[in-house]
Amino acid sequence: MKIAVDAMGGDFAPEAIVDGVIQASAEMPSDVTIVLIGQQSVINAILEKHNFKGANIEIIHADDVIEMGEHPTKALSQKPNSSIGVGFKLLKTGEVDVFASAGNTGAMMVGALFSVKAIEGVFRPAIAGFAPQTNGKYAVMLDIGANADVKPEMLAQFAELGSIYCRATTGEESPRVALMNIGEEEKKGSLIIQAAHQLMKENKKINFIGNIEGKDFFKGKADVIVTDGFTGNILLKMGESLYGIMAERGVRDSFLDGTNYEAVGGSPIIGVNGNVIIAHGASSPTAIKNMVHLCKKQVESKVYQKIKEALA
Amino acid sequence: MKIAVDAMGGDFAPEAIVDGVIQASAEMPSDVTIVLIGQQSVINAILEKHNFKGANIEIIHADDVIEMGEHPTKALSQKPNSSIGVGFKLLKTGEVDVFASAGNTGAMMVGALFSVKAIEGVFRPAIAGFAPQTNGKYAVMLDIGANADVKPEMLAQFAELGSIYCRATTGEESPRVALMNIGEEEKKGSLIIQAAHQLMKENKKINFIGNIEGKDFFKGKADVIVTDGFTGNILLKMGESLYGIMAERGVRDSFLDGTNYEAVGGSPIIGVNGNVIIAHGASSPTAIKNMVHLCKKQVESKVYQKIKEALA
Repeated sequence: MKIAVDAMGGDFAPEAIVDGVIQASAEMPSDVTIVLIGQQSVINAILEKHNFKGANIEIIHADDVIEMGEHPTKALSQKPNSSIGVGFKLLKTGEVDVFASAGNTGAMMVGALFSVKAIEGVFRPAIAGFAPQTNGKYAVMLDIGANADVKPEMLAQFAELGSIYCRATTGEESPRVALMNIGEEEKKGSLIIQAAHQLMKENKKINFIGNIEGKDFFKGKADVIVTDGFTGNILLKMGESLYGIMAERGVRDSFLDGTNYEAVGGSPIIGVNGNVIIAHGASSPTAIKNMVHLCKKQVESKVYQKIKEALA
Repeated sequence: MKIAVDAMGGDFAPEAIVDGVIQASAEMPSDVTIVLIGQQSVINAILEKHNFKGANIEIIHADDVIEMGEHPTKALSQKPNSSIGVGFKLLKTGEVDVFASAGNTGAMMVGALFSVKAIEGVFRPAIAGFAPQTNGKYAVMLDIGANADVKPEMLAQFAELGSIYCRATTGEESPRVALMNIGEEEKKGSLIIQAAHQLMKENKKINFIGNIEGKDFFKGKADVIVTDGFTGNILLKMGESLYGIMAERGVRDSFLDGTNYEAVGGSPIIGVNGNVIIAHGASSPTAIKNMVHLCKKQVESKVYQKIKEALA
């Protein structure tokens, strides 16, 4: 297995990325190689600084870097030799099994859509996040930011995609799917949400348990939480803020540990023909280490192939 | 001042309501009377049980009760002598200065719109919630549930209404207004949110500080948080769940105390010609006590009169 990581993307790149990859490399089985993409001399210097002697990290050179503030489509076309551009080329040709970056999220999304492309039958790929639950597990939530504006059919399909993701990665045979809403009754919520509720209710391919409210978000009621990219993004980021807020106040607790973004390490783009993971811009070495584990798990789960089969 | 409280509304009514009102009555100055609306004999029995001997609680009899699950408009027209129906009659004639209930939220909203009515110039009244902040204060957030579907002009007006509310109740001269969004840049978010951002930027009557993200929600960055009733409801309820989650885990902390809905006691309907407060359905006596304090504060602030003047 080859896991490609953008060495140049993220607020603390390349140092934090290379450091995290070195940590991950020590925990990977012998058939896994991590491919660092970026400026070779820079990466080599960091590997040397850390006195890295292993054989399971490769470097593939990329001249350019897409900065965080750049316009995704423009940046990708103007910088084909950026680390993100090169990453998607390798993913498309199958030279790597997964590509992950803590860099420009928009460029990752556009890169995925232009290179490996959306799976046929997918209306709009989504970004999935992991919502920490009081039972110690995580619920898969989608969308968390790719689609601020949605249609009912998109939400209903997020339910299917999320179910397949959950089944493939956790082994849960019949994941409980809930629609994020402002009441339990099916007539609650915006017009789009009400229509989505009806579509989800009629969909035999999912185990739809109905609406959940904000008060249920952390309470382990669902395995898959369906929402639009606007609501999902705000909820996930609000949840992630708890770890830091409470740590500053001297409170440590295992549930709060689950709200630490470092614990998960990344968010997969679901619905494209390949494994693509977006990591937090502020990723620390620990976050990157966990991102590499997430990459490995996703490749092993064969989730995008399963989505392809399901929609064929 | 006369504060009218629906004795029959709420999951633990009438016991919890009357109990909370008795507690509040002991903390009110001599010019405040609390008017309990509901079935006289039932209310009297609870007052006697608590051995209430004070002179600052009155009872106004109402035969009927609107149940939590009833259709708001139907219930109000079929039960004019319900406690909610009678409460709005008293509010409209000016016999009471504020009306509060922990009962059917929809009936409270419809009752307000049919009796005291929306203030001229208000597109759609909103429900305001209080979002606890790490600095120990609360931000006013609106809407938190009256309008799941919004237009940009509605959001921009929520910003004005929230600013007036904040100024009137806290004395803060130039409250910082933020738009809840998925990024700081003005081109982020749904199409409606992007359009609202432009309207808010151009509005000279508010101190618009731009977008805030989910990670900023608790961090004291804004005094007024503008959002649609769908997002706001989910965020507030998610926030409120933290108190119980952490208390069950044995964690107590002053910031978490602020997430306890009991601490605030209610949510005002903003943009109608009168003071109307909606309390949590599960209100405890403590919550009701704090609701009465919120009622008093709102009457004293003259906020609806100030909104009327601002829009005249």
